[in-house]
Amino acid sequence: MSEQRQLSGHLRESHIGQQVKLKGWVQKRRDLGGLIFVDLRDRSGVVQVVFNPEVSEEALNIAEKVRTEYVVEIDGEVVARQAGTTNDNLETGKIEIMAQHISILNKSKNPPFLIQDESDTSEELRLKYRYLDLRRKPLQETFKLRHKATQAIRTFLNNDDFLEMETPLLTKSTPEGARDYLVPSRVHEGAFYALPQSPQLFKQLIMMSGFEKYYQIARCFRDEDLRADRQPEFTQIDIETSFMTKDDIMDMTERMMKHLLKEVKGMDLPTPFPRMKYDEAMERYGSDKPDTRFDLELVNVSEIVQHSGFKVFAGAIESGGSVSSINVKGKAADFSRKDIDKLTDFVKIYGAKGLAWLKADNGELQGPIAKFINDEESTSLRHALQVEDGDLLLFVADKTAIVQESLGALRQKLGKELQLIDENAFNFLWVTDWPLFEYDEELDRYFAAHHPFTMPEREDVEKMTDKPYEARAQAYDIVLNGYELGGGSLRIYEKELQDKMFEVLGFTKEEAQNQFGFLLEALELGAPPHGGIALGLDRLVMLLAGRSNLRDTILFPKTASASCLLTEAPDYVSESQLHELHLELGEKAKEKRQEL
Amino acid sequence: MSEQRQLSGHLRESHIGQQVKLKGWVQKRRDLGGLIFVDLRDRSGVVQVVFNPEVSEEALNIAEKVRTEYVVEIDGEVVARQAGTTNDNLETGKIEIMAQHISILNKSKNPPFLIQDESDTSEELRLKYRYLDLRRKPLQETFKLRHKATQAIRTFLNNDDFLEMETPLLTKSTPEGARDYLVPSRVHEGAFYALPQSPQLFKQLIMMSGFEKYYQIARCFRDEDLRADRQPEFTQIDIETSFMTKDDIMDMTERMMKHLLKEVKGMDLPTPFPRMKYDEAMERYGSDKPDTRFDLELVNVSEIVQHSGFKVFAGAIESGGSVSSINVKGKAADFSRKDIDKLTDFVKIYGAKGLAWLKADNGELQGPIAKFINDEESTSLRHALQVEDGDLLLFVADKTAIVQESLGALRQKLGKELQLIDENAFNFLWVTDWPLFEYDEELDRYFAAHHPFTMPEREDVEKMTDKPYEARAQAYDIVLNGYELGGGSLRIYEKELQDKMFEVLGFTKEEAQNQFGFLLEALELGAPPHGGIALGLDRLVMLLAGRSNLRDTILFPKTASASCLLTEAPDYVSESQLHELHLELGEKAKEKRQEL
Repeated sequence: MSEQRQLSGHLRESHIGQQVKLKGWVQKRRDLGGLIFVDLRDRSGVVQVVFNPEVSEEALNIAEKVRTEYVVEIDGEVVARQAGTTNDNLETGKIEIMAQHISILNKSKNPPFLIQDESDTSEELRLKYRYLDLRRKPLQETFKLRHKATQAIRTFLNNDDFLEMETPLLTKSTPEGARDYLVPSRVHEGAFYALPQSPQLFKQLIMMSGFEKYYQIARCFRDEDLRADRQPEFTQIDIETSFMTKDDIMDMTERMMKHLLKEVKGMDLPTPFPRMKYDEAMERYGSDKPDTRFDLELVNVSEIVQHSGFKVFAGAIESGGSVSSINVKGKAADFSRKDIDKLTDFVKIYGAKGLAWLKADNGELQGPIAKFINDEESTSLRHALQVEDGDLLLFVADKTAIVQESLGALRQKLGKELQLIDENAFNFLWVTDWPLFEYDEELDRYFAAHHPFTMPEREDVEKMTDKPYEARAQAYDIVLNGYELGGGSLRIYEKELQDKMFEVLGFTKEEAQNQFGFLLEALELGAPPHGGIALGLDRLVMLLAGRSNLRDTILFPKTASASCLLTEAPDYVSESQLHELHLELGEKAKEKRQEL
Repeated sequence: MSEQRQLSGHLRESHIGQQVKLKGWVQKRRDLGGLIFVDLRDRSGVVQVVFNPEVSEEALNIAEKVRTEYVVEIDGEVVARQAGTTNDNLETGKIEIMAQHISILNKSKNPPFLIQDESDTSEELRLKYRYLDLRRKPLQETFKLRHKATQAIRTFLNNDDFLEMETPLLTKSTPEGARDYLVPSRVHEGAFYALPQSPQLFKQLIMMSGFEKYYQIARCFRDEDLRADRQPEFTQIDIETSFMTKDDIMDMTERMMKHLLKEVKGMDLPTPFPRMKYDEAMERYGSDKPDTRFDLELVNVSEIVQHSGFKVFAGAIESGGSVSSINVKGKAADFSRKDIDKLTDFVKIYGAKGLAWLKADNGELQGPIAKFINDEESTSLRHALQVEDGDLLLFVADKTAIVQESLGALRQKLGKELQLIDENAFNFLWVTDWPLFEYDEELDRYFAAHHPFTMPEREDVEKMTDKPYEARAQAYDIVLNGYELGGGSLRIYEKELQDKMFEVLGFTKEEAQNQFGFLLEALELGAPPHGGIALGLDRLVMLLAGRSNLRDTILFPKTASASCLLTEAPDYVSESQLHELHLELGEKAKEKRQEL
């Protein structure tokens, strides 16, 4: 008998005649004509094992006892399957194992759901039994891909002279940004650590430490209300460099992605990636992360319709807004009035007051608003939107932000529904020239659009105080198929500029000192020019694996309420644990706890 | 002028005549005979730059303004140093840069300490300005080595078909073991996550998920009172496998270490590593992590002296204890009575009541207790301890645990002080056959010596309830130069055995269910036989780098009171942050907070 264990999924016709020892899980058992057939599964795949009383009565008797998901060890011989019984769906389908011995390593109760490629079991049950769900081939493949992608990125960065370095997870809370997860200190009564939202400050300090090229596959934490594509802890490819320009960093990132796609998908990715300014992305795609796999672009027709007899158009422009349109090529006949009403309801989600439309037929624009459009306007629209007979034109007239957001969302929806998207494409895009600040109307203050350490364009430094809304950042986002894959920037490395930034953001000198004093001091002790980028690994893997659920790419994910259904974390802890941490529960939390 | 930046430390005679662009830090500036000399430092090393008014008056004028740690960009030509001015201590010492241009990228205040290889600055100040300390060459080298070691380990494991996988950091608190760091939940009022002390349960679940070979360079957390060689967060090389035997896992680990030492130290490590049972390690070295780089072994002389006229010896044995001795070869003359008194004080730290001694001279054993030792005992001792003239024998008689611990510590101390240790050796050792349980006298209960998931030796399963103190674990520790580098075990994969283990540890069925219900259920759904190992990366790097302080191997370490002196974490947080987390500070913590 063979001593060394073989992997089931690797057996082929070339192994016929060999003795093998296999270990794995019983995927399926069938009894047929006095024989027993077992599909044996391990990490490499599945092979069929046959128990024949003429080979071993004893093995057959034991095989009779095995059930789905039993863990077994099998000795046998690789034999060719009989003509007509080969299975082309299985990589091992030309052979089978004639079993001589079997031993049961561990039993299994009947699992709550079957381990098969496609599962219609509820996600809740699958998350509770995550270890069963993970035995399914599509998830096994996803985590092999995740491994491969991670190593490809490491190999690239290692060869490019980067050092992988670990930054602390017990750090200081910096309220600017998202909400921190806090960790009470036992030693320092009443004080808390925070889990990092990103290693931002530490990677800048690493540059100030003279390492020049740093990366980390870094765990990050955000205590936010979760959407489908967010997790409380996530992983980012975190990179920082000294003395490199924006172009250097974007070029390095492109080479990294090229290497990754080659390693993981065998694809030759064309570089350089297209670059688009933020303003252009918003104008043409109504999105700061355009999906460029399909057209259906927004066209700003404000100039054409600014004096239109259609008061909704003229009025929007008069109040400082704009009018944009998308041309749904050749689909006029496919959209009934009722269909368009549904689209109107859709854009209203984004604050649009309505959706105007025109259909091109017989060289004319038709529809309820056609009568307000004069000949000159009609000609200009047809030209600007490259209208042909059979086209459907959709318009939103409103504040520009609403026009862009609503039409951008509508574009995405139509692209998907009309199947305009090439699902095999990997369209990378840089979005550059970001605004430095975002204005919060409610709080009447400016926030850093990126983060407070982002370097403004040199020529916009004056604007930071005069016209903050016009100041541009030396920042760049990398977009893949309409997802924000990551982003980065050059950082401020001069003390005076950082002071000015905090001032614009409304920090008093004391607040800036309390929260970021160590950084401000470091800027005065030989801080090099530096910048970097961070890319979301979970999302990257999701896109590479062609999946749409971020939870499929995280080994033990949490639900939308940040719970782990498997381990039931978070959970209540003992009074003595709280006491040691100098904490008491608030009244309501106390009651909740006592209800149990 | 050269467009592409070169690295200072890489320049050699072969570059003479080339134009270069350098960027980096001013290590030192000297003015000499109308010239200015700047030592320019970057991540690659240091090169000398010369400013000569005959080459560029302008550059000289700017160079006059630069100070230590200024960040500068320099264009110049690589030239040979004049005879007599070469510097053999510097890799670039045969050349220098004749500067044509210099620009100041950033200024620096006078740093609080100089960036030089050896520093006598207090560790406190160095930690506060960690980014300056990290610019020092020995620390730069340590983190390059850490990077290299990490990648070597990954390469080995990737080639051995392991998958790198990420386990959650927001997990469930399991009070068994060390103290958890807790993270309050905002969504689930009164509930807490815990940061993992290790990914133990998750890596077992990964085996139950069918991945078979997992690894992770994993961050772990323990809220313990810190000793010099502990940190609240640390990194371990975490490995788990299915279907492998103890020997398979130890063999794989040895191959990994062999690969690592080859890559990082260029060393051929002999394998297999020696193996020693726990009992033998305690008996011969008085330690469960023996430093085998030197002898000075403990010899149990209980049988020889059990009827000794020296009542301290006979008495200890009569009350169930023992007597052991170490022979300090040829050092009798070096230890005065006063010296030996000091050693006596030392062993008292470990609970020994005293230290008996004998010196061998003229074929006789001499010293205050010599008169109680009869001829037969003397001959036997001389034989057992291989005594020659000039040897010093040191004895402890006590409970066996005290004998072993105190003499083990004394052995280590003498080994160091007498310089018996080969500092260049890397002595690996496996310690096997560990006790399954530890008995806590105070609490009168058994604890898991390793953790509650450790598989007992099959033949000791009965003993778990009958004679727990005799039950052995299928566990193994890997020891390097007297440090516990890591440890592992086979795990329990059968529900009944795991139930039994929790029972011995004093868990009620309900407690076991509440804390580990998900694991118990997974054991009944096709859990494969599995086991693994975890190695401390920080300590491994410390030993590879030949350093003695764990903080030197962690980029941003914490102090013994778990503070970060650089960022001043942990820190107080706002009332609203606490409120959102449904927490109130305890009375004392509130007062502490208000004092600020």
